[in-house]
Amino acid sequence: MRGIIDDLINALTRLPGIGRKTAQRLAFFILSMPDQEALSLSKAIEKVKEKARFCSICFNITENEICEICSDDSRDRSKLCVVEEPSNILVIERVRDFHSPYHVLLGSLSPIDGITPERLKIKELVGRIRDSEVQEVIIATNPNTKGEMTAQYLKEVLAPLGVKISRIAYGLPMGSDIEFADEVTLGKAIEGRREI
Amino acid sequence: MRGIIDDLINALTRLPGIGRKTAQRLAFFILSMPDQEALSLSKAIEKVKEKARFCSICFNITENEICEICSDDSRDRSKLCVVEEPSNILVIERVRDFHSPYHVLLGSLSPIDGITPERLKIKELVGRIRDSEVQEVIIATNPNTKGEMTAQYLKEVLAPLGVKISRIAYGLPMGSDIEFADEVTLGKAIEGRREI
Repeated sequence: MRGIIDDLINALTRLPGIGRKTAQRLAFFILSMPDQEALSLSKAIEKVKEKARFCSICFNITENEICEICSDDSRDRSKLCVVEEPSNILVIERVRDFHSPYHVLLGSLSPIDGITPERLKIKELVGRIRDSEVQEVIIATNPNTKGEMTAQYLKEVLAPLGVKISRIAYGLPMGSDIEFADEVTLGKAIEGRREI
Repeated sequence: MRGIIDDLINALTRLPGIGRKTAQRLAFFILSMPDQEALSLSKAIEKVKEKARFCSICFNITENEICEICSDDSRDRSKLCVVEEPSNILVIERVRDFHSPYHVLLGSLSPIDGITPERLKIKELVGRIRDSEVQEVIIATNPNTKGEMTAQYLKEVLAPLGVKISRIAYGLPMGSDIEFADEVTLGKAIEGRREI
């Protein structure tokens, strides 16, 4: 039992949110999977580590020089959606009827951790917007302290470019219950109320 | 973003308890891991699929003809612990002061699913106990209908061999609260009470 299974369990526990028990369950499941399915997982890991790189335009993850989204001519290039991380793109892409290009900052401002504007892809963002057809920059950084600070900073930096700058809305999550909303969110929801 | 990351996300969602969101989180984490760590995971998967086999004595998972536990001379061979699955051994091995050899049935009786005694490693168990130094067989099948049925069946099959046959105890889990115990468990706990 020691040896190969233990190695797999140990490797699995390195993943976030996977404790020893879950790793054991996963390891024995992998053991019972058809070979081809299990190997497609190991191959996918290898391939990601071997080929993944940042898109030279938007800093999304891609295996090419330019990512699929930047190469997609059907996108509305009058808008540009700014996010902190490549993983955020996947989430936003699930929204129907919204398909702009993106720009990934690769982080958010956090002076205390030494993350200053120069460490983020802000210079590249400014360069991209200048002399482009972008009319609106939608800032979709996280609704937390660092994301807010970053949004505020971007607003100042982008203002001279003469583009419209918008921030995604704050409010109650759909399907949630007012009873369980925190007062800050609720305050933002009331502040952002819209006539119906 | 499509392509290699999507392949990894899809491969991860095949694992039990891993939905799309968790798979995305894991995929981006794997992307950010040091190459060596990520590759040790993919290699561990490949190795398990390539080398794992059943121990020819106890049907534990091993990469050799005979597993490490069966090869371990320091084990108390007067006892033999019978379990349903190889994964059960890992759990029991964590118990201090109990280190017997094991016998894995590779399942539990379930006539409705066509799992009859011949489908389990019961014949092999009987063969192992006959002409051995085993004095006590501890039946550690699951405390559910199928595990109980299997334990009962083993009791009858092993009785002629003249060994002591025991069943792991039922009762309240340590650290639990009587208030939340179900009545069946509580009944078993009272039935199995011991003088202190």
